[in-house]
Amino acid sequence: MAPQLDGFFKQVDNDAGHYIERLRKAVAIPSISAEPARRPDVVRMGEFLADELKALGASVELRPLGDQPGHPGLELPPVVLARYGNDKNKRTILVYGHYDVQPAEKSDGWATEPFDLTVDDKGRMFGRGATDDKGPVLGWLNAIEAHQKAGLDFPVNLLMCFEGMEEYGSEGLDDLIVAEAKKYFADAEAVCISDNYWLGTEKPCLTYGLRGCNYYSIEVSGPGADLHSGVFGGTAQEPMTDLTRLLGSLVDTNGKIQIPGIMEQVSPVTPEEESLYDNISFTMNDIHESLGSKTTIFDDKKSTLMARWRFPSLSIHGIEGAFSAPGAKTVIPAKVIGKFSVRTVPNMGIEKTNQAVFKYIEEQFAKLGSKNTMKVYEQHSGKWWVASPKHWNFSAAAKAVERVWGTQPDFTREGGSIPVTLTFEQATGKNVLLLPMGSSTDGAHSINEKLDKRNYVEGIKLLGAYLHYVAEEPKV
Amino acid sequence: MAPQLDGFFKQVDNDAGHYIERLRKAVAIPSISAEPARRPDVVRMGEFLADELKALGASVELRPLGDQPGHPGLELPPVVLARYGNDKNKRTILVYGHYDVQPAEKSDGWATEPFDLTVDDKGRMFGRGATDDKGPVLGWLNAIEAHQKAGLDFPVNLLMCFEGMEEYGSEGLDDLIVAEAKKYFADAEAVCISDNYWLGTEKPCLTYGLRGCNYYSIEVSGPGADLHSGVFGGTAQEPMTDLTRLLGSLVDTNGKIQIPGIMEQVSPVTPEEESLYDNISFTMNDIHESLGSKTTIFDDKKSTLMARWRFPSLSIHGIEGAFSAPGAKTVIPAKVIGKFSVRTVPNMGIEKTNQAVFKYIEEQFAKLGSKNTMKVYEQHSGKWWVASPKHWNFSAAAKAVERVWGTQPDFTREGGSIPVTLTFEQATGKNVLLLPMGSSTDGAHSINEKLDKRNYVEGIKLLGAYLHYVAEEPKV
Ligand SMILES: [Zn+2]
Ligand SMILES: [Zn+2]
Ligand SMILES: [Zn+2]
Ligand SMILES: [Zn+2]
Repeated sequence: MAPQLDGFFKQVDNDAGHYIERLRKAVAIPSISAEPARRPDVVRMGEFLADELKALGASVELRPLGDQPGHPGLELPPVVLARYGNDKNKRTILVYGHYDVQPAEKSDGWATEPFDLTVDDKGRMFGRGATDDKGPVLGWLNAIEAHQKAGLDFPVNLLMCFEGMEEYGSEGLDDLIVAEAKKYFADAEAVCISDNYWLGTEKPCLTYGLRGCNYYSIEVSGPGADLHSGVFGGTAQEPMTDLTRLLGSLVDTNGKIQIPGIMEQVSPVTPEEESLYDNISFTMNDIHESLGSKTTIFDDKKSTLMARWRFPSLSIHGIEGAFSAPGAKTVIPAKVIGKFSVRTVPNMGIEKTNQAVFKYIEEQFAKLGSKNTMKVYEQHSGKWWVASPKHWNFSAAAKAVERVWGTQPDFTREGGSIPVTLTFEQATGKNVLLLPMGSSTDGAHSINEKLDKRNYVEGIKLLGAYLHYVAEEPKV
Repeated sequence: MAPQLDGFFKQVDNDAGHYIERLRKAVAIPSISAEPARRPDVVRMGEFLADELKALGASVELRPLGDQPGHPGLELPPVVLARYGNDKNKRTILVYGHYDVQPAEKSDGWATEPFDLTVDDKGRMFGRGATDDKGPVLGWLNAIEAHQKAGLDFPVNLLMCFEGMEEYGSEGLDDLIVAEAKKYFADAEAVCISDNYWLGTEKPCLTYGLRGCNYYSIEVSGPGADLHSGVFGGTAQEPMTDLTRLLGSLVDTNGKIQIPGIMEQVSPVTPEEESLYDNISFTMNDIHESLGSKTTIFDDKKSTLMARWRFPSLSIHGIEGAFSAPGAKTVIPAKVIGKFSVRTVPNMGIEKTNQAVFKYIEEQFAKLGSKNTMKVYEQHSGKWWVASPKHWNFSAAAKAVERVWGTQPDFTREGGSIPVTLTFEQATGKNVLLLPMGSSTDGAHSINEKLDKRNYVEGIKLLGAYLHYVAEEPKV
């Protein structure tokens, strides 16, 4: 039985201006987690959220996380834990979002003041955090408020977990999730995260997979200190010579990873999976536009999406210790550290991948016959995540999308990682759904970040509708 | 007829303490040319020199060079031009030195205050500029003064050119040298530069060759802006992949340049040249010590010295535009610029070398089959220099060394470039001699720069004796 949503939707449309004002207030707080000097603003943003939630009748806790690692005396912003509703006859859904934002300054090239929400005549609402992730976080609050104002029963018990350090590695959050999995989050039956984006600008999507990431360093050292190439060039074995040869052996121009034992771990593409890609709303023009060039590896949609979502990739990020400034310097760097990472996919193992990488690089280095010292090691790693899109959590979301947007969502994966996704899945043992509100053009971490008014208002409807459909999905 | 030098030598020994005080005053002026805020100190150092020279009876000019390129309103320090003696019956010798110094701060790791000359119990005089190049510059002044005090006739007319921007590319100097070649420097019969170092610590040397340097950039660009490797890894051709492959193709671990057309230009080693290397005071231990490791390419002296002095080398200095900080960042850099240089030797041509480099890199890039854009270009170049060590300028210096140090000097070349050497040679058409005062352990550009008291005092004798022997060399 399709839920009655007309009253809710009407209320949301009526109150759109009010929701935009709420977003304006949130954007006005420059809650930049990467900048210690802004920490009071991040805390203020957490308190703003807590106050709004209390005003809506939620029970709220501000959970301290202690000092930031490496910054004695600098306290991490609190995690806002909240519960709205405690009815044993209703499903309980846990939602996650973050109230911190990326750094932003007008002088970075913003057309408008980044912390002053500015709506243009196309309904684009520009402001830091508008789409990442203040709009989606407020979406849940707005959905609650619309139910209250319209005199409608809220369909589920809603558990909320909003953190203030997401843009700086979610410091402290994993431990809290694990600790609360059987406590604060104990009755959560599914998890919903709204912190990603549509694949394009017109078609909503539900996201069920993310790649993992293993990040490596190759350190090559020889001389006791940096040398002058005039004095030592030709007489010393140079670490940069060895390092560029090693980095140059990892991957080819067309992204083919040269390390044996990586591709062998990748799940084969089934005909069923392959057919999924045909319907996805995505064109080569979309990627050329977001790339700002036509330098793609593939010329067709399916290969491109598969390369982004379900195949590993290897990127070389840079070199630490070498000359990196503009101009010319005739230095022979004594110790250089190359950085690269491998995006991982099912069924790659972190450790198995590490071993393949280490073995290959050690073999390549041995071939150089160098007297320099080489070390290769993992800097950090995060596992890939793939959920079952057949779960009732996804079915409910798909029905909500169809109701709100009049179209079936694309089921997508993403090339990047959102590590908290896997943490929630592993700690709670429940299905996790990524339900994006914004679109591919929102520019989450760029200048001129925006959220379209349409995506915000329909997104509030979508979050509310999702909870109604969740309430109606059969118990399993 | 050997010149009478005993009175001069005795005076130098008597006044050693006074010369050290003069060096102390010079070191106390932090004439750091690289730091615009220190410009008044650099100017003050030039004025100090001018005043000392005037007190010795020299005629002195402070030549302005205009504003520093790229720094409107920041005047370059003046070149100190001076003449001591104007006797038509004497030879005229032009000497060059520089009164600016490298940056230095105690916190860089100095054991003593860098601008407070500190003499330890081994007679090591620590201080920025002690050996590079204030000690040698004052050497000329001290030699003049010793002659005056001892009542001895000065053997030559001395032209002096002391600049204040050597450590920052000698900005403005080339034009002045060219302009004055037939004016202020018109009667110079030979040039002597004391701004380099012995090959080791015990044996003096005369330097008759320097390598040149062609400095290149390889720029690879593709996407319109830096990308996130999660989103684009596997779908875009990455400029860093191409660049590391190109850089990795230039040279091997043992310094073998992979670019055709470079080694083909190198003058063959003659048996006569080869035999010169046998007697040179240098051991593999010396290079291992200065390298701070045993990661040399060769295990024998002759190959090592030839590789440093008379064969080209290729060094990769770094990459601009990639991630270069500590830590981990999952960026795909949109535009990266690899920097490398080729040290050049007789008879390599700058343009011929450029063409070989460009052709090779373009071929390598074509092989990659990349859609990215690649540009390779020369950033700057300076030609190699080799003088005739049979010239009377060198013979005189060799006799002076034997007289002062009791040993015949090594005739050496150097791997680095001192571009002003070639400018003097080309502008004046006269023989140029490099006559070092300090030793290989002086640490010219490092922390704890020093000049040994012995090298300073005997060095003053050497500069003076050189002028006496120059006066006695037959006219040619
Ligand atoms: Zn986010
Ligand atoms: Zn973000
Ligand atoms: Zn110097
Ligand atoms: Zn210097």
